[in-house]
Amino acid sequence: MSFKVSERMEYLKASMIREVIKYSLDPEVITFTAGTPDLELYPFDEYREASYQAFEEFGRSMLHYDVTDGFLPLRKIIAQERMTSVGVDTSEENIFITNGSQQGIDFAARIFLDKDDVVITENPSYLGALNVFESYMAKNVQVPMDENGMIMEELEKAIQSNPKVKFIYTTPDFQNPTGLSMSLDRRKKMIEIAEKYNIPIVEDNPYGELRFEGEKIPTVKSFDTKGLVIYLGTFSKFVIPGSRIAWVCASNDMLEKFIKVKQLSDLQPNTITQRELTKFIQTHSVDDHIKKIIPVYRERRDIMIEAIKKELPTSVKYTVPEGGLFIWLTLPDGVDAMELFRKAVKTEKVAFIPGAPFMVKEGPDNHIRLSYSAMKEDQINEGIKRLGKALRTLL
Amino acid sequence: MSFKVSERMEYLKASMIREVIKYSLDPEVITFTAGTPDLELYPFDEYREASYQAFEEFGRSMLHYDVTDGFLPLRKIIAQERMTSVGVDTSEENIFITNGSQQGIDFAARIFLDKDDVVITENPSYLGALNVFESYMAKNVQVPMDENGMIMEELEKAIQSNPKVKFIYTTPDFQNPTGLSMSLDRRKKMIEIAEKYNIPIVEDNPYGELRFEGEKIPTVKSFDTKGLVIYLGTFSKFVIPGSRIAWVCASNDMLEKFIKVKQLSDLQPNTITQRELTKFIQTHSVDDHIKKIIPVYRERRDIMIEAIKKELPTSVKYTVPEGGLFIWLTLPDGVDAMELFRKAVKTEKVAFIPGAPFMVKEGPDNHIRLSYSAMKEDQINEGIKRLGKALRTLL
Repeated sequence: MSFKVSERMEYLKASMIREVIKYSLDPEVITFTAGTPDLELYPFDEYREASYQAFEEFGRSMLHYDVTDGFLPLRKIIAQERMTSVGVDTSEENIFITNGSQQGIDFAARIFLDKDDVVITENPSYLGALNVFESYMAKNVQVPMDENGMIMEELEKAIQSNPKVKFIYTTPDFQNPTGLSMSLDRRKKMIEIAEKYNIPIVEDNPYGELRFEGEKIPTVKSFDTKGLVIYLGTFSKFVIPGSRIAWVCASNDMLEKFIKVKQLSDLQPNTITQRELTKFIQTHSVDDHIKKIIPVYRERRDIMIEAIKKELPTSVKYTVPEGGLFIWLTLPDGVDAMELFRKAVKTEKVAFIPGAPFMVKEGPDNHIRLSYSAMKEDQINEGIKRLGKALRTLL
Repeated sequence: MSFKVSERMEYLKASMIREVIKYSLDPEVITFTAGTPDLELYPFDEYREASYQAFEEFGRSMLHYDVTDGFLPLRKIIAQERMTSVGVDTSEENIFITNGSQQGIDFAARIFLDKDDVVITENPSYLGALNVFESYMAKNVQVPMDENGMIMEELEKAIQSNPKVKFIYTTPDFQNPTGLSMSLDRRKKMIEIAEKYNIPIVEDNPYGELRFEGEKIPTVKSFDTKGLVIYLGTFSKFVIPGSRIAWVCASNDMLEKFIKVKQLSDLQPNTITQRELTKFIQTHSVDDHIKKIIPVYRERRDIMIEAIKKELPTSVKYTVPEGGLFIWLTLPDGVDAMELFRKAVKTEKVAFIPGAPFMVKEGPDNHIRLSYSAMKEDQINEGIKRLGKALRTLL
């Protein structure tokens, strides 16, 4: 078959992640790869019960076509509970349901990006977003971070030197892949800059509700008085991902565009799982559930940090996230993380994600992302020990 | 807010359908608008039971992330049962799950279309497909139909005069909006032409299994030996639409591209409803269910045809579909279907879809689409009577 595909498709890079995931399927491999919650922590019995109740309550309409922008009671409860929890005062009018946050990212790109447009992201940034922006033939320009998140002077410089900036993509809370958060001051400054240049911000916040310690920082969206922020929230990381229910919170003008794109792309969100999740939220406290799972993830982070201190050379630097699922390691200069990956997975049977796909710059890179969320204590200890062994053979 | 959106977004036409649907919400209005199944015919108890069993059987994995190309047992049963039913001998390797057929259409467009490319469709054709192709800045070229479907000489002419044709989009069975089917000879001829010019065919078949009478005609896909046909199937019309489960059947080369696009757009199909539907199919005969609903739709078609004969002027022409959900009316020359719509919905309280959005040509049009699928006998009779009254005031 040799049909000519669109120019767009030629922008898709071969993904290193496939190789990474292929190796991770070996059951003997301890995997710190996936940014997924631990399925043992899902409220399984409660959700199943809610599903049963939803079929009772909604009857045949449960199985029918549904509206494009999402089930109204679900949008209402998201506005009231989840958006309030992140400091945003809004209503169901400003909530739009998507199939996971990935769809929100994709729609934002589809709405804004022409060939050669620019998206500004953190360096590093979520690879699933970088790939989407590239698939619309846009250019990712990455702005350096420090322990307080994206550096605002660098952001402003990037805007000034890229007239085709269409939006800023940021994950201010427990960022994927670094686990770092943006400080309060910088969030306010980011809104200031966005207003100054009239540039929208896509704020992706899948991890913000998983805070282990320290004070909650209001979202960038909470400072948005001009309708500049397209906020993406999701139930995937703190309730369940299987429902595929996430949402966009944005101005009505903006949501009009999302509705149009939804009509084109898949007509509507899932009728059944929207009602199941609504019932679950109506009959159970999501906040209580979050309080229950946080100590588990905090402990796993603690165990991993301790193991890193004990098992890895002191020349390895690491972030200590106050929440979320990820730790970001900086290996000694000259270590190629991809080479380490191949070594680690083949000879030591431990897997992680090499840093390169999170970055635009080409060539070898010395960072790796570790996820502690789905591994038990002994696996974390053993896995980091193996990682240390693999690393030492390269030093 | 005045952000510059992508050029792509400017190709989205204001949709007449919104006006149509807005009026249809009046509970006094009898609506022949929606191409939806009758929810009274859904296997509600059986699906609910299957849902319960799925939670039992799959446990926590029911709520977790899942693979991108779809749940393997579901892909297997689709290959074995549904594809066999439409004359295609295939395996799960060639099945890819989408969120409704709409997503299959959108992905095909995303994979193939650059600005100014051409898609060839029937005239008229499904407006939800035409809109997608335009949203990728492609041009729809429509080929005339007769009672045997798309006219093959015209198709070949269209290909010859449009060097930028990327694919042919066709609905050979009980087409939306005409209800007409493509003859066996023309299906074979279409494959011949596609092979001659090496042009893929997107065969959209949501209605094919709803045949009321006459002999089943094998799908275009069933004659495809070169991997040229991207076949779209769905459970929406003959089981339920709420699960949002549809599929693509295509060559591995092609499905590789669909998988990449799925990763970008929403990562995976719905974990929960894929398993519910799998369980439903494993424990109930879909073929038996189809046999149960066909007589109901056939009777509604019969009632509507009788009412048309009785209540509409003889100058109105109509199709008599052998299956599916739609009848296509040709009003006398000079009658503007949109004007009739406004008249009918406001003064007579009956709604339908005017023909213009199914066509590329601009200006007034004298066709309308009627759907009989979701209306009961007395509603059909009363509705067509009202339509007759409205039409007579315009003649």
